[in-house]
Amino acid sequence: MQIAIGLYPGFTALDAIGPYQVLSNLPGAEIVICAEQKGLLPDDNDLLHFDIAHTFDDVPSPDVLLVPGGMITRKIARDRGPIVDWIQSAHETTTHTTSVCTGALLLGAAGLLEGKLATTHWLSYEHLRGYGATPTEQRVVTDGKITTAAGVSAGIDLALTLVGVLAGPEVAQAIQLGIEYDPQPPFDAGAPSKAPAEIKALVTDLMHAAEDALLTS
Amino acid sequence: MQIAIGLYPGFTALDAIGPYQVLSNLPGAEIVICAEQKGLLPDDNDLLHFDIAHTFDDVPSPDVLLVPGGMITRKIARDRGPIVDWIQSAHETTTHTTSVCTGALLLGAAGLLEGKLATTHWLSYEHLRGYGATPTEQRVVTDGKITTAAGVSAGIDLALTLVGVLAGPEVAQAIQLGIEYDPQPPFDAGAPSKAPAEIKALVTDLMHAAEDALLTS
Repeated sequence: MQIAIGLYPGFTALDAIGPYQVLSNLPGAEIVICAEQKGLLPDDNDLLHFDIAHTFDDVPSPDVLLVPGGMITRKIARDRGPIVDWIQSAHETTTHTTSVCTGALLLGAAGLLEGKLATTHWLSYEHLRGYGATPTEQRVVTDGKITTAAGVSAGIDLALTLVGVLAGPEVAQAIQLGIEYDPQPPFDAGAPSKAPAEIKALVTDLMHAAEDALLTS
Repeated sequence: MQIAIGLYPGFTALDAIGPYQVLSNLPGAEIVICAEQKGLLPDDNDLLHFDIAHTFDDVPSPDVLLVPGGMITRKIARDRGPIVDWIQSAHETTTHTTSVCTGALLLGAAGLLEGKLATTHWLSYEHLRGYGATPTEQRVVTDGKITTAAGVSAGIDLALTLVGVLAGPEVAQAIQLGIEYDPQPPFDAGAPSKAPAEIKALVTDLMHAAEDALLTS
């Protein structure tokens, strides 16, 4: 089974690495990390640089496709970057097409979310609507062969859900135990419904400003 | 404030990237990812290759030091790899010396855990004892200026705990909301006390075999 994780300059690292850590433990899975071009690819902080060994053209028909999010996705979706064409084409033969965080906007730009239930980072629900999707606040949502996850850290939950479907709950539990995924956040502010109002307002302002700056850059 | 994340060939990606994603959002933090040598560094699957821009010598006295784990740490600890000397030296002037998963064995090899409460991946408690530490099953443990976390995914909880100490709970909550860290694992098998016995036995066998193979390679 081939699992392609499609990246682009400016992706958010944990969006990709959370699922990667789960899926790379799936027996029989071939993980292929790909991007438009081979060579060094920066994350959204320009602090991590991944050496990419495979282009999108090298992975035209993965069984499972996963795209992470990033502040830059609205711009890529608007400009129809190369990853959008790859998603649209590869989706025709996938068994599961999946996204983490605002990776969902790239599925939307590829025309895959029309009439679908889907989720994304909590600050981007409105953009999902723009692609004809019905956003939900669930952490992981499956509609047909499309599975989307909420923001950044939700990719771990998505990947374990996917392993449960692909290989059964025992394999998913074994991987969960292997990565000791028994989360105990020291605070309880990880969802907009749980965070204090002033924290939510602060994060909203900061993230919108960062995203807007990218859109006009 | 300088935060150094020290890597080595064979590290487990999520151990490093979970904390990285949290700490890179800390206002005023300078994150430096470093290793013995510049250039490409493989993770434990040899699927991810990070381009390293800074050596240990470039970061002799970080304020915060973090080391991820990996199957290879027992071997590095036994052979006293270069990261062990760096940890020992840098620790003299850190305000916080931290590890995720079996990164704790590297702190142990550097002589930092004698008489300390500490944690690591649940399969490696006995190795902590070998370094004079008292292992605990807590997810994140602070003893003096040393904070250790449980396996792989626990680095996210460690980093949020650390941000709470360094910058206050509001900043930690804002980062938690930004990365939408409201975990909802689809299974409840993330700790040895929660996983079914046969799953625990399977994971124990697989991980011990993998680790033993590295020790004799």
